Amino acid sequence: MNESKKILRAEREFSVRFSEVDSMGIVWHGSYPLYFEDAREEFGRIYHLEYMHMFEMGFYAPLVDLQFHFKKPLKYGDTGRIVITLQNTDAAKILFNYEIYNKETGELVATGSSTQVFLDTEYNLVWTMPEFFMEWKRMNGLEG
Amino acid sequence: MNESKKILRAEREFSVRFSEVDSMGIVWHGSYPLYFEDAREEFGRIYHLEYMHMFEMGFYAPLVDLQFHFKKPLKYGDTGRIVITLQNTDAAKILFNYEIYNKETGELVATGSSTQVFLDTEYNLVWTMPEFFMEWKRMNGLEG
Amino acid sequence: MNESKKILRAEREFSVRFSEVDSMGIVWHGSYPLYFEDAREEFGRIYHLEYMHMFEMGFYAPLVDLQFHFKKPLKYGDTGRIVITLQNTDAAKILFNYEIYNKETGELVATGSSTQVFLDTEYNLVWTMPEFFMEWKRMNGLEG
Amino acid sequence: MNESKKILRAEREFSVRFSEVDSMGIVWHGSYPLYFEDAREEFGRIYHLEYMHMFEMGFYAPLVDLQFHFKKPLKYGDTGRIVITLQNTDAAKILFNYEIYNKETGELVATGSSTQVFLDTEYNLVWTMPEFFMEWKRMNGLEG
Repeated sequence: MNESKKILRAEREFSVRFSEVDSMGIVWHGSYPLYFEDAREEFGRIYHLEYMHMFEMGFYAPLVDLQFHFKKPLKYGDTGRIVITLQNTDAAKILFNYEIYNKETGELVATGSSTQVFLDTEYNLVWTMPEFFMEWKRMNGLEG
Repeated sequence: MNESKKILRAEREFSVRFSEVDSMGIVWHGSYPLYFEDAREEFGRIYHLEYMHMFEMGFYAPLVDLQFHFKKPLKYGDTGRIVITLQNTDAAKILFNYEIYNKETGELVATGSSTQVFLDTEYNLVWTMPEFFMEWKRMNGLEG
Repeated sequence: MNESKKILRAEREFSVRFSEVDSMGIVWHGSYPLYFEDAREEFGRIYHLEYMHMFEMGFYAPLVDLQFHFKKPLKYGDTGRIVITLQNTDAAKILFNYEIYNKETGELVATGSSTQVFLDTEYNLVWTMPEFFMEWKRMNGLEG
Repeated sequence: MNESKKILRAEREFSVRFSEVDSMGIVWHGSYPLYFEDAREEFGRIYHLEYMHMFEMGFYAPLVDLQFHFKKPLKYGDTGRIVITLQNTDAAKILFNYEIYNKETGELVATGSSTQVFLDTEYNLVWTMPEFFMEWKRMNGLEG
């Protein structure tokens, strides 16, 4: 059995807010980083990888790369479903992929990815994987 | 003379707002799409490529791809300088590249890029370059 | 039986997002209008008073007055509970009151209120109560 | 000469961002707290009352009351002008009033006010006016 193939994923639904659509009535691109953030927090709750826990371990994990690709518009009144998947890596990074679907139609409407690195409490980049994160991976059946 | 080498660029300075920093005191990644947007609007004012003008021509140019790469933190109290450059293309798209500098230190702190496509007023994707945009390119010395 | 005493209320829980706290780790005041908005949308879903429905009836109900009063901080990791209550009025307005509680401690941490007026599709203020809203009130057991 | 009548005010212009307008094309109410914040930061720069300075003095000044009153819409493409005025008080509070004008028409389009209190670094409310703030008032010709 190859544990590293284990997929950690989470998902949540969300209603498009009135404040999130632009003057054409479709979700403004700047709202997608918030949807991605919500997905990361949901993932954190399910798999116990919360920011709070990292802080307590002495780490901060800022997002340093973000990619967003739009396929179809979401409109006010639509319900979205976001799926977040951890992409396992040997590097001292946290990689996530995101897929957003229109819940009613089932269509994939946007995708994205993000990379987080680890900083210590003096904002220095941590080049080797923090012990707490290796332990977290082991507990969740991931290699690396 | 190769007109297509002409570079259209704009820049603006901005102060980091208190509401833009996170609990570590550094600019939250979700603020960067706003900085990019401000840069696009500055570009639009200088080169007359405003959203309003596009609307009047019957087009809407939503952002469909966004990339953001963080290099160093900006903190509350810092002044940033963002440089936006149009990347000319034959496709019916608007491509921008962004560079953000810490004004005091001169360091490059973040980069990014964005792609906009054209939709007509019924939200249909426009595959050929709109006439107004071809005319805009000619007036600004760009080929394609 | 005095129908006008009927109380229409809704509530929802929310997790404080990392992006909503400031550099002191507490929710930034600018996030509260978003919490209020979420509460209005929840109210709209429960009692069928959605913006979409108003649009179809030819009305737009922008928020023209907003008050926010802070009592105690919410922190990252806290769960809030917001209660929204319609304040019935004879005027052509929609008045809401808001109470936000810390779910764990039960403490009231913030209150607020908002007033919305009706505009027609040409942005003219509507001075008399729209027919659809009077009908909505009747269906929900409210006088006036 | 009654020094307490001295008026401290600042103002700044701003362009309405595309992301700040809603699907009706007018500025969404949730953007006004950001305009108010920008005005406070401008005031802080002019009169040396920055958050950073307060932090260094050991204080944090969260906004605990906010009022917003809308009069006329601002639209995408409009330029606003915000005027912020300190309302002097004997209490250990910072009170600001705001007026937003449409720059082109000169019309008053929105007003507001905010109250900030002082917390120490352990989040305890400070009931007496901090020494640094009394000194700041004296240097700026204000009584109380």
